[in-house]
Amino acid sequence: MLTVSPDLRRYLTGFASSFGFVYTDAQESVFFTDPRYAEGARAALKNTFIAVEVAKSEETVLDYIKSKKIKTLAVPTERLTLVQYGMLKKRKFKLFDCMPALNAAMSVKTEEEIACIARAADIAEKAYLTLLEELKEGMTENETAGLLEYLMRKYGAEDRSFETIAAFGKNSSVPHHAAGADKLKRGMPVLLDFGCKFGGYCSDITRTFLFGNSADDEFKTVYGRVLEAHKIAAENIRDGMTGKSADALARDYLKKFGLDKFFTHSLGHGIGVNIHEAPRLSQTSTDVLKNGMVFSIEPGVYFEGKFGIRIEDSVTIENERVKSFMKTEKGLTVL
Amino acid sequence: MLTVSPDLRRYLTGFASSFGFVYTDAQESVFFTDPRYAEGARAALKNTFIAVEVAKSEETVLDYIKSKKIKTLAVPTERLTLVQYGMLKKRKFKLFDCMPALNAAMSVKTEEEIACIARAADIAEKAYLTLLEELKEGMTENETAGLLEYLMRKYGAEDRSFETIAAFGKNSSVPHHAAGADKLKRGMPVLLDFGCKFGGYCSDITRTFLFGNSADDEFKTVYGRVLEAHKIAAENIRDGMTGKSADALARDYLKKFGLDKFFTHSLGHGIGVNIHEAPRLSQTSTDVLKNGMVFSIEPGVYFEGKFGIRIEDSVTIENERVKSFMKTEKGLTVL
Repeated sequence: MLTVSPDLRRYLTGFASSFGFVYTDAQESVFFTDPRYAEGARAALKNTFIAVEVAKSEETVLDYIKSKKIKTLAVPTERLTLVQYGMLKKRKFKLFDCMPALNAAMSVKTEEEIACIARAADIAEKAYLTLLEELKEGMTENETAGLLEYLMRKYGAEDRSFETIAAFGKNSSVPHHAAGADKLKRGMPVLLDFGCKFGGYCSDITRTFLFGNSADDEFKTVYGRVLEAHKIAAENIRDGMTGKSADALARDYLKKFGLDKFFTHSLGHGIGVNIHEAPRLSQTSTDVLKNGMVFSIEPGVYFEGKFGIRIEDSVTIENERVKSFMKTEKGLTVL
Repeated sequence: MLTVSPDLRRYLTGFASSFGFVYTDAQESVFFTDPRYAEGARAALKNTFIAVEVAKSEETVLDYIKSKKIKTLAVPTERLTLVQYGMLKKRKFKLFDCMPALNAAMSVKTEEEIACIARAADIAEKAYLTLLEELKEGMTENETAGLLEYLMRKYGAEDRSFETIAAFGKNSSVPHHAAGADKLKRGMPVLLDFGCKFGGYCSDITRTFLFGNSADDEFKTVYGRVLEAHKIAAENIRDGMTGKSADALARDYLKKFGLDKFFTHSLGHGIGVNIHEAPRLSQTSTDVLKNGMVFSIEPGVYFEGKFGIRIEDSVTIENERVKSFMKTEKGLTVL
C-alpha cells in the first residue's frame, strides 16, 4: 500500500508532515520524507516499526517499490492526482483501491483516539468560555476568531482544526462565512464554529448566542427549533442507523415548521485526523453509524440577509447511543 | 476554462471558498458554488462580470458546459484528481493544460496585488515586534505561535498565510518543525517562520533570534554567514535571472565555509494567493525571475540536534532589482 496525502500519512504514522509517502507491505512499513522532516520523523518514530527514509520525489519511492518486485499496489483512488496516476501506470503497477478499507478503519476510533478528541473538545470549550468573558463591543470577527484560536493553543491545543468561523449579525446567515473586518455591536447574534487538534485529532463545535438581549421573537423561536432538532438527533441516533436516517431525524422535525428548506447543509460528518471524514450524515448517505464512530451533529437554519443559527456538538456512539464530547450550554446564551 | 482548486478560484474571482468551480469562455464567467457560499459570493461579486450559480457537484457544472456545445476545455492539469479527469473524459472533452498560462499570469503581480502583499508584510512585522515584547520564559511553542497569529489578526490580517513555525532551542534545527509543548528557556535560539493574508494575498517571513545572550560563538558565526548569504542574494538577484542562478548566489557563498551541505532546502518560492507558487528559486529551477514577481529569499543552515538558522524576507523585483517588503532587523537580535 502506498499513500501520499497528509491526513493518511498522519493516521498511518502518527507524524504530521507536509511531504511524504507511506509504503507498507507484509515485511515492512517505510515513511519516505524529505530532508526538512527527516530528523523530526526519526525522533517521533524511533519506537515504532516504521522506518524513515529520505526521498525527494515520488520517483525514488516508486523505484524502491519496483525493485522489490511488487506488482499490485493498493492506493486511495479518490486522493490520486492525475499526475500521480500517470507515474503509477508508467511503471505498470496493477492498482487496488484501499480507500474503502482506510475509511472503515479510520471512522471507528480506538480508545486512544477517542481520548484525544475528548481532550480537543475540552480545550475548545474552555477557550470558548474564556472568550465569552473577553468579548467586547467593537471587536472584529477576525480578532475574535484569532483570540479563540490563541486561547485554544494556550490551553494545550496543537492548532485549530479548521479556520474558525466568526460571524456577527446577518453574517451568521452565511453558513461558511469567512471572518472579516465587521465589528461586534450590542444586540447582534454571534455564530462561532471552531475546534482544535490534540494528539493530531480534531474537535468541532458551533455555538450561536446573542451579544445583548435585543433579538426579536423570530430569532428566539427559531433557536428553540434548531436546539430541539439537535436534541432529537442526539437522543435517537443509534448504532446501526444509516447516515440518511440520522439526518432525517433533525430534518423531519424542522419540516414541521417549514424550516427544512433553510437547513441547507447536511446534519453532520465524521471527525478524526480530518475535520471532515467518514461517516457522512446527510440526505443521501448510506454510511452505517457504529459504536466508536465520532461525528458532528449540527443542524442549522439560515435566513439570507437576516440571521443564521447552528448548534453543533462533536459526539461519539458508545453502547449504542450518542454521547456528546461537549459540556457547554446549548440553551440560548445572552451575554 | 474550468478550474476547481481553492487558490485558482480565489485568484480568478477574488472570493474565498472551500467548494466551487470557475468556468470561463468567450461569452461569460460563472462561479458555481454550493448553497453555503451562494449568498456570500453574490454579495462579493455583484460589481464584477462573474455570475454566481448554485451547483452541488461537478456533474451539474459539466452538464452545463456540455449544453453549450463546448468541445475543448482548458484545465490546470497538475491540479486534476484522477476522479475529476475521469468525469471529463467520460463527457469526451478535449483537454488543454492552462496551468502554464495561469502560473505566468499569477507570478507577475499587479500593483493592487503588490499593495496587498506589502500590507500583509507590515502586519506580520508589527505582530512580530509586539510578540518580542510579550515573549516570556515558560511559554510553549504552541502558545507563542498562537499569540503571533492572534496579533496578526488583531492588526488587520484575514488569517495566517500558513501554520506558524515556532521552534525553540534545538527544535530550530528541524526546518519545518511543528510547534509543540516545549517551553522557552533563557539562552535558547528561537526560530519563527510566519506570515499572514491581507486581501487574499500572503506574506512570509522568518526570523531567528536569541532569548538571552548565552549562545556559543558557533551560533553567532553561522548566523553571520546566513545573513551574508541572504544579503548577497538580495543585492544580486536581477530581472531576467533564472531561479537556479538566484539560488546559487546564496549557496555558493555558504559553500566557501562548508555550510552548503546544511542548507537543505531551496532559496525561495513565489508568494501570492498561495504561500508557495511560481517562481521557484532552487538548484534546478529554470523559472526566469521578472519585474513584478514576488518571492521569498530564505537561506537556512541546520545542525541536527543543535540549532538551525533561517533568515527570510518576502521581496519583489522592482526596476530590475530586489526590493524587500520587510523592515525589521535582520542582524542578530538578542532579547
